[in-house]
Amino acid sequence: MKNIITISREFGSGGRSIGKQVAEKLGYAFYDRELVDEVAKRSGFAPEYIEEHGEYANARNSLLFYLATAERYSHDNLSMHDQLYITQSKIIEELAEKGKCVIVGRCADYILRDRKDCLHVFICSDMASRARRIVERYGQTQKAPEKRLAEKDQKRKVYYKNYTGRVWGQAQNYDICLNSGALGVDTCTDMIVQLCK
Amino acid sequence: MKNIITISREFGSGGRSIGKQVAEKLGYAFYDRELVDEVAKRSGFAPEYIEEHGEYANARNSLLFYLATAERYSHDNLSMHDQLYITQSKIIEELAEKGKCVIVGRCADYILRDRKDCLHVFICSDMASRARRIVERYGQTQKAPEKRLAEKDQKRKVYYKNYTGRVWGQAQNYDICLNSGALGVDTCTDMIVQLCK
Repeated sequence: MKNIITISREFGSGGRSIGKQVAEKLGYAFYDRELVDEVAKRSGFAPEYIEEHGEYANARNSLLFYLATAERYSHDNLSMHDQLYITQSKIIEELAEKGKCVIVGRCADYILRDRKDCLHVFICSDMASRARRIVERYGQTQKAPEKRLAEKDQKRKVYYKNYTGRVWGQAQNYDICLNSGALGVDTCTDMIVQLCK
Repeated sequence: MKNIITISREFGSGGRSIGKQVAEKLGYAFYDRELVDEVAKRSGFAPEYIEEHGEYANARNSLLFYLATAERYSHDNLSMHDQLYITQSKIIEELAEKGKCVIVGRCADYILRDRKDCLHVFICSDMASRARRIVERYGQTQKAPEKRLAEKDQKRKVYYKNYTGRVWGQAQNYDICLNSGALGVDTCTDMIVQLCK
């Protein structure tokens, strides 16, 4: 029985919408924004800070980021980023204990890797579909959508690697990976729902 | 309409069996061993040579392999490996033209990437299930099954990177990736069949 569904997703892939649809169809709780609010309440961090640093690495340059990370561990005090990660992890574990739910992003696949009642999903899509989607949802900016996406991808990748030691989007880390551009958002939803029934 | 299904798979994941089941259920042709025989007939290479070099890189050390590759292109003559890859690619393109089929391995996902009627599948599994499977199928050897698998993975990865420029097993390269250890071989078959109907 799959009580917990974790959805990892590329920005602009529709992963969040798929997660929401799945939760509605199965009658599961849905944690995305709700998770950010809970972390905010418990940690004292502002929701905007959590949105920005709760699943994105800080620096574009991963080498610099790794050096900073390595140095950090030589200190007794945890960095703010690590404190945020730890609070977030605890809340994710508690939510999973509470009962059936869909959790979007935030390394939940890794944090809950030892539970047997999870379905770990990764949603990706081709660049053109993602670019169209973010322009529809968030509007145009001066920066080309492809460039915005490439930056987001890089930051998520580094964040994920840093906290999990894994490669983001590598099929072996998930139970199922779906390309929403090729299959369509609704088909992705249906396949996940079916696996949980 | 998905006329062509390409199955990329980790060794020991059951990907070949899934491909065969899918082909039977859909009434599609199934190319795995048949493909090797056709390549043998046309190229003059022995089937054993094709099995060994048609999707595995030669060297364990990828740096050495890359250096060898880089040097190779400065010569006018193609290496035997490249000749094999080219013959194999042509045959895969021809098979796809012939009609509905399932093609296992051999970079078919990359070779047929521009066709719109393909479903590109990746099958993976956890190490314990894969180890169990290869011992059941091919028996014990002096080398631990985990070590045999790690070597195979590395060789396929390097081969795939060399000929496609892509990362093997990266979700974004496929339409759907399924973990047969978590979902079960039969569920994987059913999901693929359903997507093609």
